[in-house]
Amino acid sequence: MQTVRVELGDRSYPILIGPGVLAEVGDRLQQLRCARRVAVVSNTVVAPLYRARVEDSLRHAGFVPSAIDLPDGEEHKNFAWLTFLYDRMIDAGLERNSAVVALGGGVVGDMAGFAASTYLRGVPYVQVPTTLLAQVDSSVGGKTGVNHAAGKNLIGTFYQPRFVLVDTDTLKTLPRREFLAGLTEVIKYGVILDPELFALIERELKAILALDPRVLAEVIRVCCTLKAMVVSEDEREADYRAILNFGHTVGHALEALTEYKRYLHGEAVAVGMAFAARLSHARGYCSAEVVERIVQLLKRAGLPTEYPKDIASKPLALAIKADKKAAGDKIRFVCIDDIGQTRFDFMTAEEIAAFAGR
Amino acid sequence: MQTVRVELGDRSYPILIGPGVLAEVGDRLQQLRCARRVAVVSNTVVAPLYRARVEDSLRHAGFVPSAIDLPDGEEHKNFAWLTFLYDRMIDAGLERNSAVVALGGGVVGDMAGFAASTYLRGVPYVQVPTTLLAQVDSSVGGKTGVNHAAGKNLIGTFYQPRFVLVDTDTLKTLPRREFLAGLTEVIKYGVILDPELFALIERELKAILALDPRVLAEVIRVCCTLKAMVVSEDEREADYRAILNFGHTVGHALEALTEYKRYLHGEAVAVGMAFAARLSHARGYCSAEVVERIVQLLKRAGLPTEYPKDIASKPLALAIKADKKAAGDKIRFVCIDDIGQTRFDFMTAEEIAAFAGR
Repeated sequence: MQTVRVELGDRSYPILIGPGVLAEVGDRLQQLRCARRVAVVSNTVVAPLYRARVEDSLRHAGFVPSAIDLPDGEEHKNFAWLTFLYDRMIDAGLERNSAVVALGGGVVGDMAGFAASTYLRGVPYVQVPTTLLAQVDSSVGGKTGVNHAAGKNLIGTFYQPRFVLVDTDTLKTLPRREFLAGLTEVIKYGVILDPELFALIERELKAILALDPRVLAEVIRVCCTLKAMVVSEDEREADYRAILNFGHTVGHALEALTEYKRYLHGEAVAVGMAFAARLSHARGYCSAEVVERIVQLLKRAGLPTEYPKDIASKPLALAIKADKKAAGDKIRFVCIDDIGQTRFDFMTAEEIAAFAGR
Repeated sequence: MQTVRVELGDRSYPILIGPGVLAEVGDRLQQLRCARRVAVVSNTVVAPLYRARVEDSLRHAGFVPSAIDLPDGEEHKNFAWLTFLYDRMIDAGLERNSAVVALGGGVVGDMAGFAASTYLRGVPYVQVPTTLLAQVDSSVGGKTGVNHAAGKNLIGTFYQPRFVLVDTDTLKTLPRREFLAGLTEVIKYGVILDPELFALIERELKAILALDPRVLAEVIRVCCTLKAMVVSEDEREADYRAILNFGHTVGHALEALTEYKRYLHGEAVAVGMAFAARLSHARGYCSAEVVERIVQLLKRAGLPTEYPKDIASKPLALAIKADKKAAGDKIRFVCIDDIGQTRFDFMTAEEIAAFAGR
């Protein structure tokens, strides 16, 4: 088992990573002296696979779990289902010190986290992420969110979990395409922050794709450590965190332009990362070799790297602008100088989109 | 002008108190370098009286204010109106650094504060409380909330404002009954924490009732300072804050039993404070003289002090239990040993309600 401690003063918490760690939820909650009633928020796909194990662990430690299942899919990350969640939490008799356990991917985590952060002005929250994306991305940073018709995660909070259990066994049941999409974020951490991680993925890609628990735990540990570093750094140096958006400007735009149907998030970000690498080279920041290493690794991981031929640069520019609600004329675009080295470049949406043809 | 600084580390903020301070909102927001667009959340009663002045101040400082009016009354502190609020905030084009100004009483503050704390994971929030209750109670503590069918403030956050402007002039248009109800909380701070404040109110009650701005500012300053002390103390010693509930156990129950129609919140708490004082005396904690001083001051302020004859102790016990969702058998009841000295007593709802006849 691997452990990462996310240091955030009195909101610090551990991430436990390894096969079977899911079964620790009961003992860990007992150590925190949480109230007897516990809500296990999951979705209708994940719950049949893992909820029984979570509930067994909770009952064994003397807790009374209540199951709350959301439907699967980002389209349900909305206010109607949030209201459902609050109602079930009230039905479950949750009190001020009752824990909410999020068992599932990003949608379950975002919704359960938002509900936990606002129910009785905040109850203890625990994450048991079951997708690779949630394991490396959502388990650090404390972001919760609910979508609004006007935009994704328009409503949300920053709220830290009390602990996170990353059970690598859960990746065995994750659909292959989702696993690969999650790898995008793993590769991203290598590209923006850590040449060693990038080399490790290059070297151990076969073992990763074969779900080798030792390699997976190591890779996830490094990603969580890197993200924790970025997040704590950002508490001092505002906006440093923005480097995590590498590949996301174009990725988000592609998702929106294809109505969230063609690409999984990680796939769109893979295209966006290759795009950003090529743009960085064209601007004279990184070598052609660096671009090639990134594109090759993404390809070997079965991820898309080519900008789609059927989407012109004009709609891309519009979609980028729509995504960057808060910006002025120029957008802060994350470029790379080398593997592990980023820089911000300030460009208009049109300037970015002009690279779509290359 | 009086100033109280609420010390909460990097979330510290000032409360400015005095006649006319409302006009400072624009300059103060400019100092914080907030984005141009600002939402002014108010209600349909307060907005016609003060919104123009707030908007003038904002425009003068280069801001573009958008007015968002909620209907007046606690019955609208719900999810339907919260959704309305989010929609209007989106329409107003608020960005990450756009401020939300709450202009009104507790309902406006709770709703606008909750919306500000969750919009884009938190935007700057400013309070301009226009009721005495909100000025002494809601301006310190960072509590926001929305009611749910199952209970008041079931959904909420802790979120600190960037500053608070307590304009004592706004009390001139506050309905007299609401002003007096607000005085309950002022008197409460004297009873639980500060014999000097209590004596000051006894001595200066006439000036207070005549809305003398000098005395009002002084009294509000002391209340805010006391609450700030309690709140910061509570960050170390959990649950100390509960002393602020003096009079509220019975007060809340009476409000619920009379369906929020007979009493204003402060009136019900006035009855609850007299009740708690008498109970404290009966349990041997405080003298009959102390009870008499409290009851006399409440009476002189035009507040009710007698437990209603038409409500038996049995429904009272049930209502107390319903209110204390999180408690076990015994309820932590706030008693007094003297003016300025509290103690917790652990009693069942039935034991508390048994004092209803006395």
